[in-house]
Amino acid sequence: MTAPAVTQAVTQLPGCELCALAAGQPAPGAQIVHEAEKFVVILADEPNYPGFARVVWRAHVREVSDLADADRLLLNEAVWQLELAVREVMQPLKVNVASLGNVVPHLHWHVIPRYADDAHFPAPVWAQAVRATDPAVLDARRALLPELTRAIGRRFAKQ
Amino acid sequence: MTAPAVTQAVTQLPGCELCALAAGQPAPGAQIVHEAEKFVVILADEPNYPGFARVVWRAHVREVSDLADADRLLLNEAVWQLELAVREVMQPLKVNVASLGNVVPHLHWHVIPRYADDAHFPAPVWAQAVRATDPAVLDARRALLPELTRAIGRRFAKQ
Repeated sequence: MTAPAVTQAVTQLPGCELCALAAGQPAPGAQIVHEAEKFVVILADEPNYPGFARVVWRAHVREVSDLADADRLLLNEAVWQLELAVREVMQPLKVNVASLGNVVPHLHWHVIPRYADDAHFPAPVWAQAVRATDPAVLDARRALLPELTRAIGRRFAKQ
Repeated sequence: MTAPAVTQAVTQLPGCELCALAAGQPAPGAQIVHEAEKFVVILADEPNYPGFARVVWRAHVREVSDLADADRLLLNEAVWQLELAVREVMQPLKVNVASLGNVVPHLHWHVIPRYADDAHFPAPVWAQAVRATDPAVLDARRALLPELTRAIGRRFAKQ
């Protein structure tokens, strides 16, 4: 298996919620904070995880390794810039970065700021929750989201 | 926060199990299948997930975004090659790729072949298991590991 020379043209798969999001349709639970030619950056509406962000590839591509080299590097750069923005503003204890896509097999990356007092730490956010974070702490983290949005804007404007 | 110009020199943190692994100490539950200057590739001993592989950065670095640019791209290339090898040999329904590190904050990437009949599908492998995979199916996947080891060797020899 070798990487394709060119990523297949943008395709929209009917019924795919990330195709719909990338095509500009309203996306409940997601705020688009940056739109690039080949991807969008969103803040997820995850009540326990303010600052949980995603990079969503526009085309309906299944795996990272289905991308052409140049696109793979472009996506990698985007995830890295998003990680930097999340670290800068959210000041997490740890960052978790993942591309899973078992439920929605449309290429997207999760960038998740983690804290010792979050609902699952040190387990992944997909494990069973082990605690409830102090609502005041969550509020304080949520208050950072406008600044996170600006930081993402600044980083992606430079690209 | 900007990326460092040069990733800090290789450091070994006493008590870190991935530092110990990268330094060549026996690693229960992990078979080293490729050793590069800056990273190692291992097959994890995860009974429910034959073909679960990892790239472990040698230096005790915490986040992807703590790496110098050249090292970040080198690591990205390694994870991509590993994903290609896993797809080629294991023929999964989906690949999951993640860098978490909450328990062992030493930079490493998981590359996990996923199947509709695996223990957690479509949830992430860190969620609660929902089924037991047919032992004969797991045996058949396990029988592919020598070929996976050779495929990884071929891919990384080219780099």
